Amino acid sequence: MSEIANHTTEKKIFREEWIDFIHDLQNRICTALEAVDGKAKFVEEQWQRAEGGGGKTRVIANGAVFEKGGVNTSVVFGEVTDTMRKQLQINGEKWFACGLSLVIHPNNPFVPTVHCNYRYFELYENDAVIDRWFGGGTDLTPYYLMEEDAIHFHRTYKNVCDQFDPSFYISFKKICDDYFVNKHRNNERRGIGGIFYDHQKPDEKKDLQFWFDFGKACGNAFIDAYIPIVEKRKNTQYSNQHKYWQEIRRGRYVEFNLIHDRGTIFGLKTNGRTESILMSLPPTVRFEYNYEPLQGSPEADLLDACLHPREWIKKEEIQIDPIEWAKRANSC
Amino acid sequence: MSEIANHTTEKKIFREEWIDFIHDLQNRICTALEAVDGKAKFVEEQWQRAEGGGGKTRVIANGAVFEKGGVNTSVVFGEVTDTMRKQLQINGEKWFACGLSLVIHPNNPFVPTVHCNYRYFELYENDAVIDRWFGGGTDLTPYYLMEEDAIHFHRTYKNVCDQFDPSFYISFKKICDDYFVNKHRNNERRGIGGIFYDHQKPDEKKDLQFWFDFGKACGNAFIDAYIPIVEKRKNTQYSNQHKYWQEIRRGRYVEFNLIHDRGTIFGLKTNGRTESILMSLPPTVRFEYNYEPLQGSPEADLLDACLHPREWIKKEEIQIDPIEWAKRANSC
Repeated sequence: MSEIANHTTEKKIFREEWIDFIHDLQNRICTALEAVDGKAKFVEEQWQRAEGGGGKTRVIANGAVFEKGGVNTSVVFGEVTDTMRKQLQINGEKWFACGLSLVIHPNNPFVPTVHCNYRYFELYENDAVIDRWFGGGTDLTPYYLMEEDAIHFHRTYKNVCDQFDPSFYISFKKICDDYFVNKHRNNERRGIGGIFYDHQKPDEKKDLQFWFDFGKACGNAFIDAYIPIVEKRKNTQYSNQHKYWQEIRRGRYVEFNLIHDRGTIFGLKTNGRTESILMSLPPTVRFEYNYEPLQGSPEADLLDACLHPREWIKKEEIQIDPIEWAKRANSC
Repeated sequence: MSEIANHTTEKKIFREEWIDFIHDLQNRICTALEAVDGKAKFVEEQWQRAEGGGGKTRVIANGAVFEKGGVNTSVVFGEVTDTMRKQLQINGEKWFACGLSLVIHPNNPFVPTVHCNYRYFELYENDAVIDRWFGGGTDLTPYYLMEEDAIHFHRTYKNVCDQFDPSFYISFKKICDDYFVNKHRNNERRGIGGIFYDHQKPDEKKDLQFWFDFGKACGNAFIDAYIPIVEKRKNTQYSNQHKYWQEIRRGRYVEFNLIHDRGTIFGLKTNGRTESILMSLPPTVRFEYNYEPLQGSPEADLLDACLHPREWIKKEEIQIDPIEWAKRANSC
């Protein structure tokens, strides 16, 4: 970090605090996932980036519960390149980014796949911070739709959001539903969503500390949101047919990640670490011509929820004045 | 075709001749593949395109030899859209395209996957042809490198090329090696190539008939280039380890098609028929973190051939005067 350490103490401390949080979160999430798996352990690989910084890729494979997964952190920095200026529409001379990104693919088709990503970005000119923002989110990709699991997952994040701003959940759920979309498949979502936010910049109302605390709270909520679902479903009996459907749906996951996901494509085209980026791809996948589930089947029910995102939290639970809501939604 | 039938008789006849050739080639290739498979039959699905034209998708699945494959033709036309103007860098008001595209994924890891594509494009303004070009190619993706198969495949296309121009094979092999590249994987090719050419426009030296005949000869050569390899390898014994490696390599095929292949990405982003475009994806695929074959293994040998494209035809066989070669290479 010596190359960008010559900023004011406040800023350095803040950045270091986020880095510490991300590394601590990585440890806690890996410990929780190992505990619920009961067999496999994460294997860590540290890597350096020639242009500045590096990361810790932690991979789990062939577990009792998790067939493949990764919980990665990176702390990277460098000069703003022309590609970044164009594709990210940013100015400035130097940048810094630190985040955690995870994807977990369970073996059992009744345990959903999960993805989350929490990150912080700083932009510098003449060694002063000229811009900074937070982004993140967590989304769930079940293969069979269990309403109670979907409600538990969404409610966990709604509870976190509500502690910060009652408009957040509605707004960030919609952003999530609108982002993880296979546009080439009739706007089918890859799963049942969760929350997603990006480019959240501190202002007078919601300062740096506010967004830091929000990112922390969302990151911390991952364990509560996901682990109970794994515990509940990990011993459910399944057949080859269930596994077949899981692998078909995993195909859609691959399609989204490689065709549409901005992060994946940007990473691969700007010399990111390929193995860490593509860690997100499922272990075994199936592509079948024109596969369609039987009408009225549990598979068709899942597909319907992906084509038409549902509201998992009853409307009466979202008790805010619509005008106030609109104002808040516009401000973020 | 009524919307674009009001051109001169010569042009109409030419276009119709190409369409007839493509449909006949589709029939002949499907018959040859069914014969070597011995069990599965192609199933045809005809589709219409709202903006003009349509196609015949023919799919084979779960055969004795072929796990999944498609031999598709399409005859499509329409108005030149802004997206086309930008992405294809073309002018004109209307366009017409007709081609055959096939991808065959055999079950046995010792039988290579093959892809080919032959197409003809016309561009119109005020109902007159203002531009037209041919493109095509065939490339082989083995999972285990059998030198004699590679040589047979390349020699078949070299023989075709040599009947038209002795510079073609060297030039079109290089274009192929440079196109099917996973840039995000250290420029690893998806296979051992073949030939590939695009935007070949008729001129005084090489007229419309020349390029038509060349496309026909290349298309016709597919059966000679591929079927003998299938015959030779389809009964080779293989283990789960061989299948595992095939599925890892199929992962690279998916990565190339979804991240880099211009045709796939353009098709998906311009409302092409998703199921026909993604017919190319392999039936079962495996993504493993940081998978590397053992040094000195047959798997490592294949990988080496993908990282460093080889010359399959001995140099002394390519007997042309270098000055003549350079002249010819520049003219195409």
